Amino acid sequence: MHIGFLGLGNMGGPMARNLLKAGHSLTVFDPFPQAVSALVEAGAAAAASPAAVAEANVDVIITMLPTAAHVKEVYLGKDGLLAHASQGVLLIDSSTIDPLSARAVAKLATAQGNPMLDAPVSGGTGGAAAGTLTFMVGGSVSVYDQALPILSAMGKNVVHCGDSGNGQVAKIANNMLLGISMAGVAEAMALGVALGMDAKVLAGIINASSGRCWSSEINNPVPGVLDSAPASRGYSGGFGTDLMLKDLGLATEAAKHARQPVLLGAATQQLYQSHSLQGYGGLDFSSIIKLYQMGNQA
Amino acid sequence: MHIGFLGLGNMGGPMARNLLKAGHSLTVFDPFPQAVSALVEAGAAAAASPAAVAEANVDVIITMLPTAAHVKEVYLGKDGLLAHASQGVLLIDSSTIDPLSARAVAKLATAQGNPMLDAPVSGGTGGAAAGTLTFMVGGSVSVYDQALPILSAMGKNVVHCGDSGNGQVAKIANNMLLGISMAGVAEAMALGVALGMDAKVLAGIINASSGRCWSSEINNPVPGVLDSAPASRGYSGGFGTDLMLKDLGLATEAAKHARQPVLLGAATQQLYQSHSLQGYGGLDFSSIIKLYQMGNQA
Amino acid sequence: MHIGFLGLGNMGGPMARNLLKAGHSLTVFDPFPQAVSALVEAGAAAAASPAAVAEANVDVIITMLPTAAHVKEVYLGKDGLLAHASQGVLLIDSSTIDPLSARAVAKLATAQGNPMLDAPVSGGTGGAAAGTLTFMVGGSVSVYDQALPILSAMGKNVVHCGDSGNGQVAKIANNMLLGISMAGVAEAMALGVALGMDAKVLAGIINASSGRCWSSEINNPVPGVLDSAPASRGYSGGFGTDLMLKDLGLATEAAKHARQPVLLGAATQQLYQSHSLQGYGGLDFSSIIKLYQMGNQA
Amino acid sequence: MHIGFLGLGNMGGPMARNLLKAGHSLTVFDPFPQAVSALVEAGAAAAASPAAVAEANVDVIITMLPTAAHVKEVYLGKDGLLAHASQGVLLIDSSTIDPLSARAVAKLATAQGNPMLDAPVSGGTGGAAAGTLTFMVGGSVSVYDQALPILSAMGKNVVHCGDSGNGQVAKIANNMLLGISMAGVAEAMALGVALGMDAKVLAGIINASSGRCWSSEINNPVPGVLDSAPASRGYSGGFGTDLMLKDLGLATEAAKHARQPVLLGAATQQLYQSHSLQGYGGLDFSSIIKLYQMGNQA
Repeated sequence: MHIGFLGLGNMGGPMARNLLKAGHSLTVFDPFPQAVSALVEAGAAAAASPAAVAEANVDVIITMLPTAAHVKEVYLGKDGLLAHASQGVLLIDSSTIDPLSARAVAKLATAQGNPMLDAPVSGGTGGAAAGTLTFMVGGSVSVYDQALPILSAMGKNVVHCGDSGNGQVAKIANNMLLGISMAGVAEAMALGVALGMDAKVLAGIINASSGRCWSSEINNPVPGVLDSAPASRGYSGGFGTDLMLKDLGLATEAAKHARQPVLLGAATQQLYQSHSLQGYGGLDFSSIIKLYQMGNQA
Repeated sequence: MHIGFLGLGNMGGPMARNLLKAGHSLTVFDPFPQAVSALVEAGAAAAASPAAVAEANVDVIITMLPTAAHVKEVYLGKDGLLAHASQGVLLIDSSTIDPLSARAVAKLATAQGNPMLDAPVSGGTGGAAAGTLTFMVGGSVSVYDQALPILSAMGKNVVHCGDSGNGQVAKIANNMLLGISMAGVAEAMALGVALGMDAKVLAGIINASSGRCWSSEINNPVPGVLDSAPASRGYSGGFGTDLMLKDLGLATEAAKHARQPVLLGAATQQLYQSHSLQGYGGLDFSSIIKLYQMGNQA
Repeated sequence: MHIGFLGLGNMGGPMARNLLKAGHSLTVFDPFPQAVSALVEAGAAAAASPAAVAEANVDVIITMLPTAAHVKEVYLGKDGLLAHASQGVLLIDSSTIDPLSARAVAKLATAQGNPMLDAPVSGGTGGAAAGTLTFMVGGSVSVYDQALPILSAMGKNVVHCGDSGNGQVAKIANNMLLGISMAGVAEAMALGVALGMDAKVLAGIINASSGRCWSSEINNPVPGVLDSAPASRGYSGGFGTDLMLKDLGLATEAAKHARQPVLLGAATQQLYQSHSLQGYGGLDFSSIIKLYQMGNQA
Repeated sequence: MHIGFLGLGNMGGPMARNLLKAGHSLTVFDPFPQAVSALVEAGAAAAASPAAVAEANVDVIITMLPTAAHVKEVYLGKDGLLAHASQGVLLIDSSTIDPLSARAVAKLATAQGNPMLDAPVSGGTGGAAAGTLTFMVGGSVSVYDQALPILSAMGKNVVHCGDSGNGQVAKIANNMLLGISMAGVAEAMALGVALGMDAKVLAGIINASSGRCWSSEINNPVPGVLDSAPASRGYSGGFGTDLMLKDLGLATEAAKHARQPVLLGAATQQLYQSHSLQGYGGLDFSSIIKLYQMGNQA
């Protein structure tokens, strides 16, 4: 298949490479020339604009962009995809954005004859490189079935979440819970240690008990508890604090539009905002435990 | 062995029965005569006071009491255990109380020649009846080794958590995290449903993703998601809201003494307090999701 | 002067009437015909669109609209004010919207030769009718000076808050604090009463002490404490819960863009969201005290 | 009158001096000899224990102690006041403690023939020295009337709050609201400044609007806004962060016993705990604004 790919950053770059490896031909676009040239070296063709991608006789277009504003510009702008794509071209947006924007863009695409899916991912840059991402997909079943082989070239779990926008809903609901859980683990671990417990012993008990969660078992925030966790390598790698902050912002914004209270979600957003304010936005989000430690500034 | 047992309520009663089944002889006390007579029918001897239990030539005394005030009265009162127990009698308190009180009582016990452990449990009334409780034990290794065979007659996991009081620390740290996680799951599920997702689909995605936790996998708060969860039987059974509220109170109180911030823990305590105020104190703690639903009063 | 006025609702209607009373001539627009006809009866001329207002040879145009989306449409749309206003016409937006949108619109207006102010108000529908509103004005001093006589016909306090957008900043900062204070007063009063104090005695002490604030002195949330407060007439009149919720949403959104933590502001937004979810969105915002009372649903 | 006075610290010392100035004779006790000798130089007699004060033929005994544990020890211990005071001696406790403890001690005192009042103060060390404290008094009207002349020698406002314990209720309800208001002012000011406003202009608008409160008008947390506020002298003097933290702890503890939710109160307690953890416990509580500022550690 001939696939257009827009957005070749830390996530989009390795995703596009996996499509090449799977035997697809690619026409790519990114505003940063070096991101484009890296893909061209790997076998992709370069296009000069979103419009040029859309006019390159592609079967499918995949986008991986940082914000809803970028998505709207790339899809709805004068030089954008909708204005230039042929009828029937399948559109897949893997950006993480708010569900309302996702639904609005998909509705316009569908109305002009372009089936569209929202398909945000989890799994991080590691999963993008290894082709083990999880895709949370919103849109009709038939369009999902059509996209499945392509998405499977980039991820190992491709989950249909329901109608348009529901991929985004699943992503932000999961990540809001993830943020709450991580801050909760940080509080529980910091409390236990302050009261005299060994962190490894406490983590072991929690992980065998009702407090267990991904944040305690896989990404424990206390250095030394898990050798494989970012906490044990200075909170480098992993899922950055500012990315968690972005997703918590999307969750509370969506909750506002749905008139749905999310008290812990909103409090957690503020905790991550405080943590980012202290200069830790680039560290793995498990570094939130620094908020609970004396002299964390050192 | 001859074991004294004080506190024969919903937890202590079945725990004492399991000791009888394991072949131990028991002398028991409880202020409610019917609780005592039920155990006497099962083969235990009755005592008229804590002092009488202590003077019944026991090797071990186990207590299962509702609050730190009860523990202090039973151990430190004029008719209490310390004033009447022979040197060398092993004392095990399975009540859930604050670590400071646990340490204070154990220090006095040890000073007069009675080794003592704090050994709070998790697993609920079901685990107490089935003998599958988890014991979180604080005290020296040698005393823990001495108690292990006895505790194993009542539970399947007996975990040494470190020095005196650390059993309580592990319990309240785990349960604080549990309360936060459950409220977080409630918010994430309510948000997802409000935004148009099917609850079962969302739970499936979360449980395969980084948001997964015991509260989403085993005790999902949305009715119908898990047939085995309290949510699917009107929030009956399980771990009551007011018991969660008690443990959150112990956690924030211990945090105050340790000068340790626990922002989400304190917020969650208030959410459970609000939920209890609406009359839901007796429902399983997963019913906290009612806080996030329109017309929850119905 | 000849003034254009767009948005003739509960606030805009009486504001426009006060301009007529002050001797100005008015050309007005509102999508609801009955809102327009009421003003026409009072002496205004009707226009069929924002463009028609702009082309009616006006000196000044004032807008009073519900959301930033409306403001953008009315100012920036094809039939909007910027596309049709003559150079030099003074533009005053009295809507309460986020500062970023206010600044963006004002920048475009200024660039094409139309001086513009953001001038949100406080004082409610009572103040609009009585001409006693407070205007919080953002923009250059010279433009502010030009607008002062016009705004003074509708309000008794006209405060210059600094550059463009700062009127909105002052409004949302004040109202975020107001929401926090009211919820704080509700908690303090509910706590005192639960602990056995008479509400009037407690209010008296607080109002003579360091806890005093507008919400305790002027709008005390306990019925019977102040005869003049909405609480003493079933929480009718006053400043509605859903309006407070809107302003808290603007505040937390602006905080997100400024990367500024507002933990109590965000928690208060969620409390008001919970309160609105229970069906109290139309009551005065002091009704938040119902969240803290048993059986508040009755 | 002959008055016994126990607790001669930063508050009790100057309060006792004012009683001497008013012509009363004093017998005093404090565990720190230098605190006693300072009062002896001013004309008081020294006693070697609480019992010795009670047996010094006093008409009234006033206590000013740091915690409920101290109050219980001084009143209820073997060498304590109740065991040694003559019938009819009036007891006044000006410590700030939880209402339950205050009521428990007063009940025992009254039962043995010693009328007792709880009479915590506000006004700080400055008010103690100047004799301008506010006393919030719980107890019967007749006992209040009896105490009024004595309290008036130390304060300018003496308010009867109702039955026993209500002085403490008024104090903690007011101070909880004060803590919430101050954190709210800090958030509003930090948000406004982050969005581009001048702090003095914003404070001026808030103080003329519905956000106004003691914390914005008298103790504004931004340096330079008020020359007389602690913020303008490095947050020295004033009411310390750790004292606010103590009062918030009393408020949330009393709320727990009353089963009353106080969500913002609990969140504010955690914010002050976080602030104290960073080493700011000794600064005026308005320094909480540092939590909201980048690089606050500097």
